[in-house]
Amino acid sequence: MSAPKKVVLAYSGGLDTSIILKWLQTEYGCEVVTFTADLGQGEELDPARKKAELLGIKPENIYIEDIREEFVRDFVFPMFRANAVYEGLYLLGTSIARPLISKRLIEIAEETGADAVAHGATGKGNDQVRFELSAYALNPDIKVIAPWREWNLNSRTSLLDFAEQNQIPIAKDKRGEAPFSVDANLLHTSSEGKVLEDPAQDAPDYVYQRTVHPEDAPDTPEFIEVTFEKGDAVAINGEAMSPATILTQLNEYGRKHGIGRLDLVEGRFVGMKSRGIYETPGGTILLEAHRGIEQITLDRGAAHLKDQLMPQYAEMIYNGFWFSPEREMLQAAIDKSQEHVTGTVRLKLYKGLARTVGRWSDHSLYSEAHVTFEEDAGAYDQKDAAGFIKLNALRLRLLATRDKRLK
Amino acid sequence: MSAPKKVVLAYSGGLDTSIILKWLQTEYGCEVVTFTADLGQGEELDPARKKAELLGIKPENIYIEDIREEFVRDFVFPMFRANAVYEGLYLLGTSIARPLISKRLIEIAEETGADAVAHGATGKGNDQVRFELSAYALNPDIKVIAPWREWNLNSRTSLLDFAEQNQIPIAKDKRGEAPFSVDANLLHTSSEGKVLEDPAQDAPDYVYQRTVHPEDAPDTPEFIEVTFEKGDAVAINGEAMSPATILTQLNEYGRKHGIGRLDLVEGRFVGMKSRGIYETPGGTILLEAHRGIEQITLDRGAAHLKDQLMPQYAEMIYNGFWFSPEREMLQAAIDKSQEHVTGTVRLKLYKGLARTVGRWSDHSLYSEAHVTFEEDAGAYDQKDAAGFIKLNALRLRLLATRDKRLK
Amino acid sequence: MSAPKKVVLAYSGGLDTSIILKWLQTEYGCEVVTFTADLGQGEELDPARKKAELLGIKPENIYIEDIREEFVRDFVFPMFRANAVYEGLYLLGTSIARPLISKRLIEIAEETGADAVAHGATGKGNDQVRFELSAYALNPDIKVIAPWREWNLNSRTSLLDFAEQNQIPIAKDKRGEAPFSVDANLLHTSSEGKVLEDPAQDAPDYVYQRTVHPEDAPDTPEFIEVTFEKGDAVAINGEAMSPATILTQLNEYGRKHGIGRLDLVEGRFVGMKSRGIYETPGGTILLEAHRGIEQITLDRGAAHLKDQLMPQYAEMIYNGFWFSPEREMLQAAIDKSQEHVTGTVRLKLYKGLARTVGRWSDHSLYSEAHVTFEEDAGAYDQKDAAGFIKLNALRLRLLATRDKRLK
Amino acid sequence: MSAPKKVVLAYSGGLDTSIILKWLQTEYGCEVVTFTADLGQGEELDPARKKAELLGIKPENIYIEDIREEFVRDFVFPMFRANAVYEGLYLLGTSIARPLISKRLIEIAEETGADAVAHGATGKGNDQVRFELSAYALNPDIKVIAPWREWNLNSRTSLLDFAEQNQIPIAKDKRGEAPFSVDANLLHTSSEGKVLEDPAQDAPDYVYQRTVHPEDAPDTPEFIEVTFEKGDAVAINGEAMSPATILTQLNEYGRKHGIGRLDLVEGRFVGMKSRGIYETPGGTILLEAHRGIEQITLDRGAAHLKDQLMPQYAEMIYNGFWFSPEREMLQAAIDKSQEHVTGTVRLKLYKGLARTVGRWSDHSLYSEAHVTFEEDAGAYDQKDAAGFIKLNALRLRLLATRDKRLK
Repeated sequence: MSAPKKVVLAYSGGLDTSIILKWLQTEYGCEVVTFTADLGQGEELDPARKKAELLGIKPENIYIEDIREEFVRDFVFPMFRANAVYEGLYLLGTSIARPLISKRLIEIAEETGADAVAHGATGKGNDQVRFELSAYALNPDIKVIAPWREWNLNSRTSLLDFAEQNQIPIAKDKRGEAPFSVDANLLHTSSEGKVLEDPAQDAPDYVYQRTVHPEDAPDTPEFIEVTFEKGDAVAINGEAMSPATILTQLNEYGRKHGIGRLDLVEGRFVGMKSRGIYETPGGTILLEAHRGIEQITLDRGAAHLKDQLMPQYAEMIYNGFWFSPEREMLQAAIDKSQEHVTGTVRLKLYKGLARTVGRWSDHSLYSEAHVTFEEDAGAYDQKDAAGFIKLNALRLRLLATRDKRLK
Repeated sequence: MSAPKKVVLAYSGGLDTSIILKWLQTEYGCEVVTFTADLGQGEELDPARKKAELLGIKPENIYIEDIREEFVRDFVFPMFRANAVYEGLYLLGTSIARPLISKRLIEIAEETGADAVAHGATGKGNDQVRFELSAYALNPDIKVIAPWREWNLNSRTSLLDFAEQNQIPIAKDKRGEAPFSVDANLLHTSSEGKVLEDPAQDAPDYVYQRTVHPEDAPDTPEFIEVTFEKGDAVAINGEAMSPATILTQLNEYGRKHGIGRLDLVEGRFVGMKSRGIYETPGGTILLEAHRGIEQITLDRGAAHLKDQLMPQYAEMIYNGFWFSPEREMLQAAIDKSQEHVTGTVRLKLYKGLARTVGRWSDHSLYSEAHVTFEEDAGAYDQKDAAGFIKLNALRLRLLATRDKRLK
Repeated sequence: MSAPKKVVLAYSGGLDTSIILKWLQTEYGCEVVTFTADLGQGEELDPARKKAELLGIKPENIYIEDIREEFVRDFVFPMFRANAVYEGLYLLGTSIARPLISKRLIEIAEETGADAVAHGATGKGNDQVRFELSAYALNPDIKVIAPWREWNLNSRTSLLDFAEQNQIPIAKDKRGEAPFSVDANLLHTSSEGKVLEDPAQDAPDYVYQRTVHPEDAPDTPEFIEVTFEKGDAVAINGEAMSPATILTQLNEYGRKHGIGRLDLVEGRFVGMKSRGIYETPGGTILLEAHRGIEQITLDRGAAHLKDQLMPQYAEMIYNGFWFSPEREMLQAAIDKSQEHVTGTVRLKLYKGLARTVGRWSDHSLYSEAHVTFEEDAGAYDQKDAAGFIKLNALRLRLLATRDKRLK
Repeated sequence: MSAPKKVVLAYSGGLDTSIILKWLQTEYGCEVVTFTADLGQGEELDPARKKAELLGIKPENIYIEDIREEFVRDFVFPMFRANAVYEGLYLLGTSIARPLISKRLIEIAEETGADAVAHGATGKGNDQVRFELSAYALNPDIKVIAPWREWNLNSRTSLLDFAEQNQIPIAKDKRGEAPFSVDANLLHTSSEGKVLEDPAQDAPDYVYQRTVHPEDAPDTPEFIEVTFEKGDAVAINGEAMSPATILTQLNEYGRKHGIGRLDLVEGRFVGMKSRGIYETPGGTILLEAHRGIEQITLDRGAAHLKDQLMPQYAEMIYNGFWFSPEREMLQAAIDKSQEHVTGTVRLKLYKGLARTVGRWSDHSLYSEAHVTFEEDAGAYDQKDAAGFIKLNALRLRLLATRDKRLK
């Protein structure tokens, strides 16, 4: 790879990416463009601008954007149409944000004439893969710089030394090492590393930052109604909202009731297992609600096919293949299934649990006439079941006949 | 089908199967053998014996058996090795009991020289399919009698009339109609019909019989440890127990903490959707625990393949294909994966939720040396990630190059 | 089911469906509308009109249509985009025609105010299922009449008696029984029954009607070029043609070179196994050609996902679920994958075999620069492979480390 | 990686691996153990011994083994039980040999106290991945040396120079460059590179080395019978043979009749597409025969599940994951399905095509009584089909009813 001339850096404004910024300038002597996104991580963006300016970035090279609506509408919602969970439990909160960041990095590279992008993910995790696969999928000729895999600043001490030598301001609470590492966006907060590295040990209470402890949640349940159109949430308690507003609102419900905590050991794409604490308050409610509305609006054949495809779909997102033909194929299938996933779900929120307790829809496939215990109104002839069973059994009987014959 | 001469009836001792018993005698003039099983449904079996005798069944034709250990060991546990859930949520508590009952019906038919078996499932549900597919798979020449599909007693009044005409004792509380229908065994209790038929309406509190309301559960969490060997639970809090004892114990924990309630609209194999309230207290804890121990002992490749196969495996069980070559194929794959699923999981039980908070095992694949945020000890070379990403990206870059070229 | 008043009958003009026509008139006293389609079966349609008139059908109730283009464009081609084969070998020639016939039956029922449709498939085969599932999927209230399952004319003698009693003309060659049964359309000819019922015995030479014997095919190979656009064949040897024309042309190539014969024992949806002789001359060439063009234009991720989904897709079509949400979901995924499946394939046709020998496309993903044995031009860094392998191996090494530790 | 002390080299005796041998000695100063295997590639092994001795390898460090029986019994046959084909067409002839070679390399490393293994695969292909994943899966601590990724001898000239400088004898026909590269074993011969690099161009006739041109094959067909037991071929024309003998014999039949040629562009695991010419004469016959015997002995449920799992199984082998938990899981499922795949298939071999024309077995599931066009003997009640269809249609009708309602 020839040396980059102009780099778009995914810049949080924090110490680590500030060091990266400086390192790019000194190591490659290249111009740096910073991209700071509001993905709902709950941090102010203004300091990032000031810090970038302080580090010598030209104003026209500082990109600061609120991309929460795009994030929820084009990434989170499509994924929730699939009821995607990784390894049975993880709602993919980090995974789904990376492709959007890469997309903007590449777009900004094109706007600014940059020939490279850079990110602050380490060489051990999945995020480097997600950033880079997305970047390459969107621009095959882009250069990708991953300083953590290149430099020799991989200890806390050397990082701080570099910061001091380069006049990078260090917040007091960053002097010592954080007891664990955090990633956050509108969908979730994940924590991992350090005090969490022994999967046998309970995570300390202070790790959870996004939800109250279920023990501290209200002692009375709260009931909410979530309305869907074509598989996407569009209203809460009858009030229509934008995608990001809905997720924000659900986050608040989840936070209050201690919903969406997960202590998981997962298999990383790069090969090892890692332990994470995830908090996905609104997403956990949304998944339950989406399953609730699908129960009455989605045909069994479609529903079972979706369930069968889901693990691979989730794996694709986890592994960083959002921008891949196979993910797009599955998305086409999933979206096709959602045309009638329209209606409303009633949920009970209580002490860590969101549970569907009612659902209704003009698009419902539920037919009380067919299922009722009351005397038949003619909708269903029980005698049909005899033939249904007989022909479903035929191959099993032929197998049993063979077994008998061979004995 | 020629008329049956001797029928083995799945006999609960209740009013409905007593009517069936009498109806078989009068309709077909055939000898009846009764089979009453303790599957952990929580009812005494002695009354069934007395009632059978009263209805003229010869003592040697009355089979009453405790099959709880076989149920858990050979049916429930193999199914939980797969983390099987139907339509994302249902733990298959009814489905998994039917093949065992059929197996015993067929075995008793062989012992007693009976040429037919009979069951009390209706023509609208899945249970008829499960009973009969299992029966045919085990004996291709067996006759199966499903009175509900044959007789004209399909109203409450006609049933009660028939009972009175035939001196079948009717318990007082059976005079009126139950507000919903119940099935129970050691794994779960399901309720459906009548007051539950409108899926928009919350299930009344009195429907839940197996678990306390989460609001009434203890205000402090309880922590338990479940130990697994080769995928099966073998001990709780360090105390070794038989399969049925473990499930019984987990049920007690679940009951107490209000764990395992589910309000579901599901797609029946016979084609319509139905709404059920399921309570699976111990099973819900067991599923969480099994996922917990798999997190550190199961390789990612195996785990993802299992997740992908699971929905079809669950569908097979739901649809009644337990005794089928395809279920046995998947079981062989699943069992192969469980050879090292050995270790202990720590769970927090609180107000309706069971959550893994720790896990450890001699068979663990988790490697702190690989995942640590500390400086590398050489177990993992971050530079390897560059090549890994580059080659994973190659086909995406070739795609992007094509797109560029064609623009 | 209440008695039908007006029935649309899938009418071939042959003896069997003429008997059905009469039987419908006499059994139900209902008005009959006949639908005779040219699907490329190679029979003239005029005699069907005359015969229908002879049997008393009013001119406005006689529908005769050439639906070959719709058949190939909307059914055959979408199926070939998936490379669909059933049980590894069968190109689904009969299966794919049934939904289109049902679609027209239902449309004509709507046009003519008919409340029922009827078909001439027996109660043992798959075709009854395909006809009826399609019909119900398109009109949930339609009545379906399947005379072969209802009447008592199930022996040859009783059929001929009925024909004679009802003045139905019987062609001389229909007096005796055909040695096997045939279905044909533009995609294939299938033969089964009678002389073919012993799967151990070679099919007699005279069974094959659509292709020359490979031994009689030309002694020199012929080379053709098939051009695709978005997954569909659009030209042969550079000459653009309509879908039905292309298939007709490929059939001629296949016939001449003895291509597309299959002797298969397959598992029917209704439960038993049956033996069929299939001739799919053009389809066999088309499948080979489509795979050939996908080789250079379809990404590996998409291609592998397609291969994985295909068996279920083929099963859906075989079982009669063309008009189902799950088939439409898979079709959406497959069609998504075909956007760049554009280019030309060169095939060698010789003595029963069609084989791809070359392929080229503006949409090609093949990169000689990447794959060449020549010295690298920098497109690919072999050193990347080391990291790629290392991280792919990591989980396997962790497994092996565990095995070592536990020994 | 610390420097290796003793290396087991996969040594063919050819120029390239001789150069590698020398390079290992000079580059690492390490002791070299050579492993030369007869996998049926059709070359004599004695010259390899002599050449190894000439290059200074101690006699006790020269391993030469005939592993054809193990190859076919433990690798080829298990794979054929799955009907494995990669990307619809490739019989995985190269892929399946690599894990066995690695297994022996690792075993010899343990016997000889070697700490490393080495192979002659380049950094662009799949074989490096297969060799190394297998090696790491069997010994997590082994060092793997892939000279083609490390050295600077990547041009023909530099290789020949190195050979001359190191007194490595160069056969005359190796002076010039081969027009394409070849790999061979008992299952297949593959050719790729150079003259084959343009996928639009027909492969020259001289590329095919293992089969006669179909045009030159006998003008009369030959019929053979292959007998299977539990999924593996055990006899030809009634004569029992060992696994390797059977494959050898089938190769001879295939060679003679020009069977098993494939011109393929495939997606490599490392990311690019490549074009190969494969000749798999015996394997092509074996696959056809195995499908033939499964047709009558394998239940539909099992068969369809196998077909669905196969593409992933084939991908695992192609990508080098033979020794992985997920391949072993699928193998367990596949092997479970083969318990009754016992019987005999009759095949017609003619001018490039092997076609099943008959099959019989004591384990047959085919029931003429069920399928016959003759009047029913009572095995099957056609009226059952009505109920079967009605309930299969129910969900489709509920869907259609919804569509109607919403219009």
